[in-house]
Amino acid sequence: MTVYDKTLRLAHGEVRLPAFLPDATLGVVRSLDAADLEACGVEAVVMNTFHLMQRPGSSTVEALGGLHRMSGWNKPIVTDSGGFQAYSLIRQNPRLGRLSDRGIAFRPEGAGRKFLLTPEKTVQLQLAYGADIVICLDDCTHPEAPLPVQEESVRRTVAWARRGKAEFDRIVAAKALPPEHRPLLFAVIQGGSSRDLRRRCAEELLAIGFDGFGYGGWPLDEQGELLTDIIAYTREVVPAAYPMHGLGIGHPRYVARCAALGYSLFDSALPTRDARTGRLYVLDLEGDPATTEGWHSVVYVNDQKHVKAARPIDEACDCLACRRYSLGFLHHLYKIGDASYLRLATIHNLRAMVRLTSRLRAGRDG
Amino acid sequence: MTVYDKTLRLAHGEVRLPAFLPDATLGVVRSLDAADLEACGVEAVVMNTFHLMQRPGSSTVEALGGLHRMSGWNKPIVTDSGGFQAYSLIRQNPRLGRLSDRGIAFRPEGAGRKFLLTPEKTVQLQLAYGADIVICLDDCTHPEAPLPVQEESVRRTVAWARRGKAEFDRIVAAKALPPEHRPLLFAVIQGGSSRDLRRRCAEELLAIGFDGFGYGGWPLDEQGELLTDIIAYTREVVPAAYPMHGLGIGHPRYVARCAALGYSLFDSALPTRDARTGRLYVLDLEGDPATTEGWHSVVYVNDQKHVKAARPIDEACDCLACRRYSLGFLHHLYKIGDASYLRLATIHNLRAMVRLTSRLRAGRDG
Repeated sequence: MTVYDKTLRLAHGEVRLPAFLPDATLGVVRSLDAADLEACGVEAVVMNTFHLMQRPGSSTVEALGGLHRMSGWNKPIVTDSGGFQAYSLIRQNPRLGRLSDRGIAFRPEGAGRKFLLTPEKTVQLQLAYGADIVICLDDCTHPEAPLPVQEESVRRTVAWARRGKAEFDRIVAAKALPPEHRPLLFAVIQGGSSRDLRRRCAEELLAIGFDGFGYGGWPLDEQGELLTDIIAYTREVVPAAYPMHGLGIGHPRYVARCAALGYSLFDSALPTRDARTGRLYVLDLEGDPATTEGWHSVVYVNDQKHVKAARPIDEACDCLACRRYSLGFLHHLYKIGDASYLRLATIHNLRAMVRLTSRLRAGRDG
Repeated sequence: MTVYDKTLRLAHGEVRLPAFLPDATLGVVRSLDAADLEACGVEAVVMNTFHLMQRPGSSTVEALGGLHRMSGWNKPIVTDSGGFQAYSLIRQNPRLGRLSDRGIAFRPEGAGRKFLLTPEKTVQLQLAYGADIVICLDDCTHPEAPLPVQEESVRRTVAWARRGKAEFDRIVAAKALPPEHRPLLFAVIQGGSSRDLRRRCAEELLAIGFDGFGYGGWPLDEQGELLTDIIAYTREVVPAAYPMHGLGIGHPRYVARCAALGYSLFDSALPTRDARTGRLYVLDLEGDPATTEGWHSVVYVNDQKHVKAARPIDEACDCLACRRYSLGFLHHLYKIGDASYLRLATIHNLRAMVRLTSRLRAGRDG
């Protein structure tokens, strides 16, 4: 079964590829509501098992009817396994958690209890949440970590993916879901900067059998530049028929570059965080952004020169913020710290990402 | 000309009476956008000359096309004169400003310059802003202030209203506006708790000639109870043909009570502030709220008992928050401090105010 034909068909609807998926980490894209996302043309979001199991907690997500009913978002939801977040937490402070072959145990600061994330548990939770794409737990590494650490990570990531797949199959069989309601299961390819390890990880995961794959590990170097070579290579070792998710990739230029390399799903907090901190995207999509340069710039809303700007952020944009409000008014809302600024700016940057991926599709199809 | 026939016909549209007008103090109802207000059924808002002349500043409001174009709100706008805010500022710290027959001079903390608000200046600004209802500068007092202070306030309020009216007539004549585009001019009735002073103030203002009147001074006693007697009396001394604005009155019960007394416009930051601080309105409008009791209660969203509440805030409410989200999810958004909570809660409480005033109209018309 190939699930990848420029459109992903998921239990809660279709996602045209390539697609940028905003992060709704705790069940909400910060400062927006589900109707806002629909109005932006967003087709799917990424929510986060690691965070949701803490807040509001898994039993609350279930009591509120699963992630879709809880969040009012009726379209597809991808749920992150939590592997990356647990890695970040432990890397930041090793006393907050521990990783073993069994899984990841952690107790975030301020949390009253310990959490245990195993390969089975993350799949159980994601399925209980009602996710459209479930992601296996992986052992994330820093791209600069030494080879033995990367080898260990690949070994563990493959072992965990195998256990995740078994648990997934068991639950799906027990639920007897019709095929069109069955979630997809993705595995994450680790291996740091080693081509050899990336290839080996991909081949072993392909042998187990998944519906798609994610590029694992932080995708940028210390200078914030895309690790293009290894990202490109990792795509090459996975047959084109499988969708690949560029986890954590969200800069417009990097999305365009990775889409050209064959990646089709992207998520990152960057566009929404940029919006909140006053960095608003201006795109000139006349050319093909996958091949041309200079089509992306940034308006800094807080800049004093925008105080009396009666024009919108971006004349070419059709989002709520650009259709109805001047840059000068958004500057004012930013200065007075009104929450409406956060919403309008987030809507603008997300609409820019949707316009970009539409343009990338047109470039590919044209 | 009577402008008051259960519907106010204003330059930017009609307002059915009674109406609750949310405060968009700095050109925005905090955390909402203009489309949200429309979706709530709000027909007009109150903006504030005192605040707008500081932020974003009058020249910016003009550069951005006046208040309507700037804020994206195309329906009627009432602009407060600034008298009440200047009074509050000076009362709080007499070193921040000074009131004389000439007007009100003030320099708010943190402001780089001094501001001067005269009876003429406030009318000039409000007309330049494009307001639909302009309010004359008044000399506000505390309801408990001694009689000589109240007498002085009435004398000054009448003198300022006369100067405001002259300036208004001068500018309107110079602009040669067609009658349907002419803003209305309201004056404010002061007099503290003295019936005699309230009546005298009203009569002198009626002799000058205005389109409507506001009840001036803080409308609640030290216990937060409505000063019903003097509010009722002040309405009686103004002919019923004139619309009257209950300035600062916004508690649902007080709006219902004052509407029954003949007040037709209300504004207060209470419903939106209550929303932001987690006090959500639940109304049972089966009876006539102007005459019955017990139709208004409050849900405290932060209450632990709502964590898993899958029901909406108010089953009878048709706002975005109630149609699409559970109380449990709103509790979650409140707990994580997401700006979307502020918006959804504000939409809910404003929709409650619109439902209430609609019900009051039906009760009156029925």
